Amino acid sequence: MDDKLIDVPRGLSGVAVAETAISDVRGAEGYYQYGPYSAVELARTASFEEVWHLLITGRLPSADEGAAFRARVREAQQSAELRGVIASLVRDAGRDAGARAPRPPVAPLAGLKAAWPLLSAACGMRPVFDLDEADRRADAIALAAAAPVVLAALHRDSAEPLPVHDDRGLVANYLYQVTGEVPDAARERALSAYLVAAMDHGFNASTFTARVVASTGADVASCLAAALGALSGPLHGGAPARALDSLDQVGSPERIEPWLREQLASGRRIMGFGHAVYRTVDPRSALLREVAQGFGGARVEFALQFEAAAERLLAEHKPARPLHANVEFYAAVVMELCGLPREMLTPTFAVARTIGWTAHVLEQARDPKIIRPSARYVGPALAS
Amino acid sequence: MDDKLIDVPRGLSGVAVAETAISDVRGAEGYYQYGPYSAVELARTASFEEVWHLLITGRLPSADEGAAFRARVREAQQSAELRGVIASLVRDAGRDAGARAPRPPVAPLAGLKAAWPLLSAACGMRPVFDLDEADRRADAIALAAAAPVVLAALHRDSAEPLPVHDDRGLVANYLYQVTGEVPDAARERALSAYLVAAMDHGFNASTFTARVVASTGADVASCLAAALGALSGPLHGGAPARALDSLDQVGSPERIEPWLREQLASGRRIMGFGHAVYRTVDPRSALLREVAQGFGGARVEFALQFEAAAERLLAEHKPARPLHANVEFYAAVVMELCGLPREMLTPTFAVARTIGWTAHVLEQARDPKIIRPSARYVGPALAS
Repeated sequence: MDDKLIDVPRGLSGVAVAETAISDVRGAEGYYQYGPYSAVELARTASFEEVWHLLITGRLPSADEGAAFRARVREAQQSAELRGVIASLVRDAGRDAGARAPRPPVAPLAGLKAAWPLLSAACGMRPVFDLDEADRRADAIALAAAAPVVLAALHRDSAEPLPVHDDRGLVANYLYQVTGEVPDAARERALSAYLVAAMDHGFNASTFTARVVASTGADVASCLAAALGALSGPLHGGAPARALDSLDQVGSPERIEPWLREQLASGRRIMGFGHAVYRTVDPRSALLREVAQGFGGARVEFALQFEAAAERLLAEHKPARPLHANVEFYAAVVMELCGLPREMLTPTFAVARTIGWTAHVLEQARDPKIIRPSARYVGPALAS
Repeated sequence: MDDKLIDVPRGLSGVAVAETAISDVRGAEGYYQYGPYSAVELARTASFEEVWHLLITGRLPSADEGAAFRARVREAQQSAELRGVIASLVRDAGRDAGARAPRPPVAPLAGLKAAWPLLSAACGMRPVFDLDEADRRADAIALAAAAPVVLAALHRDSAEPLPVHDDRGLVANYLYQVTGEVPDAARERALSAYLVAAMDHGFNASTFTARVVASTGADVASCLAAALGALSGPLHGGAPARALDSLDQVGSPERIEPWLREQLASGRRIMGFGHAVYRTVDPRSALLREVAQGFGGARVEFALQFEAAAERLLAEHKPARPLHANVEFYAAVVMELCGLPREMLTPTFAVARTIGWTAHVLEQARDPKIIRPSARYVGPALAS
């Protein structure tokens, strides 16, 4: 090795670090697909479990395969190992009375970062390079299935976690476990549409993180926990609650335009507008606007007015680069309509994106080459 | 964005993904430096805490700064938050009697992956982009200081963790907490030399993972836990115990050559030989051989004989690319001489490498550009 280095754009922007058959994002066209299907079309027509099956196996399930897959997911959600891990993370007055130290509540996302490695250890999961495709996939399914159950249990913290029901799919069970209410069909469909649309989206920082960790051969849990760490960073864009905070701050329709002008004049960003990849309308945003409009009501009307005013004023402000509503804006509105509390918006995004991570981990694990880049040393020379 | 992609070598090999002033590895020269100093020279002459200070601040501490830094580390190791996190991970017969589910023991590395996000949550640590340099550094120090304490406590599991002593440095406290014995000066020096030499080593997969997560602005704990996930992968090379397993399998000096010939004839790798970057002698290996020789004894003699035979037979086997002992081989021998049990060899490597990760997280956090690469889609075309 001659230590010669290849220079690339900062942040690896536009650098093709791998080949993938999972999904394709075409920013210029405002379009993305999961395998051979339009992602937005799947969000409209297919269930969470069907698209999950597509992403990790490359094809949509038959009716029988779909039923078997849903049963398998529910079984993973009810395992003794998962119950044990959750019990060690949520507070329990009876148990904690005798503990050596007081325990603060653990926020859902932080708790999921801890739950995955603990579940892997409890189940004896092994490095991906020691497993065949079927065993890797089994681990991936068990860990992804655990995510909504862990997040809901930590949201309820010291209250008894609500059970997974065998006659419901993952989305309805999740809404029930978080809110305590069995969702109606409209809410289940709406949240499912958001979750499917958010499952995967190219080599964003969290997905790339999952693949770097997978390239070392680590267990699936290490890949997912690492990716979740990346997703929790403010630049990843996983903070849909901020869009709702903006709507609350504005308060009423006549305040929209003055509020937006104030923000722009003081150089602040409008939360929920603009995207790193899309230069045109974000297709997820268009889908979720439609879903929100299906509910109707004053909140949705207000959001539509806010969007229209923001797009108009942003175009006036920077005509060279007009910004559009991104996935966060209507995702936040839809999740609110489904009854999810604000602290659960980013965790709910994580439930969706976890599915994409597992697909990428499985794909990366088929390639035995470690991702190990270099750096250019710009520090002081060797002291003599 | 026109969706044009830049192609690079697989695994980003030789691609300069960032600039760094932390360390420089020159594989062709068999040499590496931390800032302006030879890393191997520091391992011989400076303490763990001094080199830690160098890596995260860019300079070695004065005597006063060094004492203050050591005190700060010990304080972090004794915090109530850390005790609480450890109590929630180790088993406790009294407490677990009333628990809802039985708990298996948690292996040290898996437990540390969970402990970091839990400690971050307990201490209210925030995204790096919300903090100034001093607060980021404080989080980095607290989390890195916690690592040896967590690992030792999980190794002892349900036994009461052993206390951190105020009159000892991190290395002596760690050896005491794992083995239950206060180490003599020779063992403390030997382990310190290994740990300093292993703190950082370019943009390996775990260090790169830490930087990708840091580039999203996530909290320091998310970066470290993600990096630890990468380190736990078999391809990362963090399995020094395998070298000792080989020595045990061979058993006696006269079995060395037949055993090696058998391995090579059946196409198996010789554990502890060969490195991705060094094409010449690994400077860490030379240092650790010297450290081992300082102890002397039959085990060290045996290891020297094994190394000599392995290098000779590997050169015969593949004359075009002769392999040398890598850092794992003598690291394992040195850690064994220091009294560390085999299951603690990779965790001990993690104690060292964590210091490098924190330095890279702090450096990356000064750059507000997210690392977000692309991929080339090679899957099926859109179904019509």
